[in-house]
Amino acid sequence: MDIIQIIDKKRQGLPHSPEEIRYLVQGAMAGTIPDYQLSAWLMAVCLKGLDLEETTALTQCYVESGQVLDFSEVQGIIVDKHSTGGVGDKTTLILAPLLASCGVNVAKLSGRGLGYTGGTVDKLEAIPQFNVSLPTEQFLCQVNSIGVALCSQTGELAPADGLFYALRDVTATVASIPLIAASVVSKKIAAGAQVITLDIKVGEGAFMKTLDEAKSLALACREVGKRLGRSISTVISRMDQPLGNAIGHTVEVIESIETLKGRGPKDLQDLCLVLGAVALVDAGTVPNLEAGKADLMESITSGRALEKFRALIQAQGGDSQVLDDYSRFPHPQHYIEVKSPASGYIEHCHALKIAQAAKVLGAGRLSKSAPIDLSVGVVVSAKQGDAVQKGQTLATLWANEMGVEEAKKLIQEAYTYSERPPIILPLVEDIFLATEPVTKPSIKACI
Amino acid sequence: MDIIQIIDKKRQGLPHSPEEIRYLVQGAMAGTIPDYQLSAWLMAVCLKGLDLEETTALTQCYVESGQVLDFSEVQGIIVDKHSTGGVGDKTTLILAPLLASCGVNVAKLSGRGLGYTGGTVDKLEAIPQFNVSLPTEQFLCQVNSIGVALCSQTGELAPADGLFYALRDVTATVASIPLIAASVVSKKIAAGAQVITLDIKVGEGAFMKTLDEAKSLALACREVGKRLGRSISTVISRMDQPLGNAIGHTVEVIESIETLKGRGPKDLQDLCLVLGAVALVDAGTVPNLEAGKADLMESITSGRALEKFRALIQAQGGDSQVLDDYSRFPHPQHYIEVKSPASGYIEHCHALKIAQAAKVLGAGRLSKSAPIDLSVGVVVSAKQGDAVQKGQTLATLWANEMGVEEAKKLIQEAYTYSERPPIILPLVEDIFLATEPVTKPSIKACI
Repeated sequence: MDIIQIIDKKRQGLPHSPEEIRYLVQGAMAGTIPDYQLSAWLMAVCLKGLDLEETTALTQCYVESGQVLDFSEVQGIIVDKHSTGGVGDKTTLILAPLLASCGVNVAKLSGRGLGYTGGTVDKLEAIPQFNVSLPTEQFLCQVNSIGVALCSQTGELAPADGLFYALRDVTATVASIPLIAASVVSKKIAAGAQVITLDIKVGEGAFMKTLDEAKSLALACREVGKRLGRSISTVISRMDQPLGNAIGHTVEVIESIETLKGRGPKDLQDLCLVLGAVALVDAGTVPNLEAGKADLMESITSGRALEKFRALIQAQGGDSQVLDDYSRFPHPQHYIEVKSPASGYIEHCHALKIAQAAKVLGAGRLSKSAPIDLSVGVVVSAKQGDAVQKGQTLATLWANEMGVEEAKKLIQEAYTYSERPPIILPLVEDIFLATEPVTKPSIKACI
Repeated sequence: MDIIQIIDKKRQGLPHSPEEIRYLVQGAMAGTIPDYQLSAWLMAVCLKGLDLEETTALTQCYVESGQVLDFSEVQGIIVDKHSTGGVGDKTTLILAPLLASCGVNVAKLSGRGLGYTGGTVDKLEAIPQFNVSLPTEQFLCQVNSIGVALCSQTGELAPADGLFYALRDVTATVASIPLIAASVVSKKIAAGAQVITLDIKVGEGAFMKTLDEAKSLALACREVGKRLGRSISTVISRMDQPLGNAIGHTVEVIESIETLKGRGPKDLQDLCLVLGAVALVDAGTVPNLEAGKADLMESITSGRALEKFRALIQAQGGDSQVLDDYSRFPHPQHYIEVKSPASGYIEHCHALKIAQAAKVLGAGRLSKSAPIDLSVGVVVSAKQGDAVQKGQTLATLWANEMGVEEAKKLIQEAYTYSERPPIILPLVEDIFLATEPVTKPSIKACI
């Protein structure tokens, strides 16, 4: 096989055989195919697409490039929820204990973050003494005993995806639905997931800007999952403004606890119920979404969900008294209110501006090994459609010395106002269960 | 400026500013933009195109990346003829003395070849003692005294094009009309040409496979030339079968001499007359193509053209007795006739197969510094449309020990036969003089 011919084929928009995809991925991993050939191919893929067969082959090759986790020793079904990334998205913190309290297993390996805030593992570290590095034996044992474990990812899952992604990042070739689908699905499969719920974000704070793009990605993921024997359901949810009100680490864990206590922001609770219900349906513990939501709500109102979180924290050595006493979390020196300069309705509360504010306060990493400040963040008090008076608090900065003025400016920039109530798009745009029959769309739809 | 944004812009099909193109070329030359980013951009250009403004900016940056030859000390107009490459194309050897004998200057720097045979400079070395490495002073002096000098290119002209081309070659990004146009025109400008006649080959033995592609390339070259103050005329000529009958070094020089004596193959003479007449019109020495052709023919029949070649050979230290005694050229050990296995009309005489035959006999370089055998080659005796009898000679291999059996096989493969005379397309498909008014086509036409 000849790499130049393979690139040329894709330049002409012709489909690859699985063998060609394998040759490409293995050559890239072995270093026999240099970056400059790989990036030319990636650009050709961005502009000419991959069909579902090619995307499946690429996903498979990504998976095979590294370790595949084996949860066969865990009893019962393991569910995995994955989000394509959003501002203020703490659904994993909530859903892990919530789903476990409804009788399904959550064995979740999460990453740290290089975004505006850290990832789930970083957030968990806001809980004093919480241990995110469990030996495999203990991790499996804990899932078997309490149905839930949240742990930092060890070893490299789908390293070929990592290699491709690093190159895509610096060659403007990230924006490709089949490449994104292969990336997402391969990591979930390598992480041992059987039932996968994907929360695909759409909107100006998300990578998918339009509903059509998000639907194409959702379709590609479901279809690739099906071809590789995994049950993948997709939810498409809006990410124009932050999810919930809190953006940071301590603040997001507190908001998660509040949600498990039934006092969370409505949008956050709604999305958790949808994602959780989808997972329960896919796991087969409930017949439909309504029954799933009812189960989840019952678990919240009865306190079972919170108790499962307590068990989780205790099992992983954390200070479970945080659930009742938020002062035990790392707290910042200052709480600074940012006031509205106008009266009216909030037209927009731009997610990325709010996220940038959290980052400049110290909540985000500047490089892979840089420290983050777990105590800082932003808590918004006004969201889209809210009526505000001039001088009313828009958001509270949880701040230390760093970045306060810039954060204030970013918060002001995040908000726009209108005289009339704005049109608010639904938070959940689309739900597609893996178990639903697919009305076969054109294969080209995933390009 | 940010290279990732520049790549992304082209991925989206947006036009670059001249500053962006300059940033890209200078960064690539300085090594601050790595190959993998450049190749992603090149693929985006292949698939999204460059408009004429961008192509002009790229050409300009290529020119500025290296030395630009200065022929201001040469009196009169300097014309340059360039071909995009064809099998058996020895028009430079013929036109250089022929045009000089008609009163225009030809100061031609040519390259060696990495194709199926060597380049013009390699061919000239078949003339014993011919010196292709002239010091600049002598080169200019010779042009002023006899109106013609043919010399090996020294120094690097448009090195950025060289860098881009090397990468295009290994990333399947050669097939882009604006990139080809920038490459061709920049090298001509850097070589100091004022009046440029481009012979763009079209057909299965050429890089441009269709007439539409060839016309687009011709248009792009003319328009870029105009924007950079150069007069570029284009001729589109077919390259399905070899031009003339001889393919190699000694054999091509002999055929060139025969043509200067008025005894050359008709197709070769016809193309030389067209290209030469275009150059004479552009140089302003004749009013139209017919007058140009008449001048050229008169120069051939009167012997002036041959005498100019003699003067050229003598000026560069070569053995000018070769003009009258072909035995002074390097000759091979064997002359092997390849016979027709069938009777009928020659339907095709595939240029690339014939070229491969010459190469396996030793006429082509395998690497940049590899030696070539100047004595070997192929002389075809049957071309498209010719009626042949079974057992009639198709071609004669001028061979030493190397590659004879393979060459025989390739010659057999090169010919196909039909019962009826095939339709023969015109050798010259299109002529467009720089002086003609352009009926403005869409700028997108050059993508």
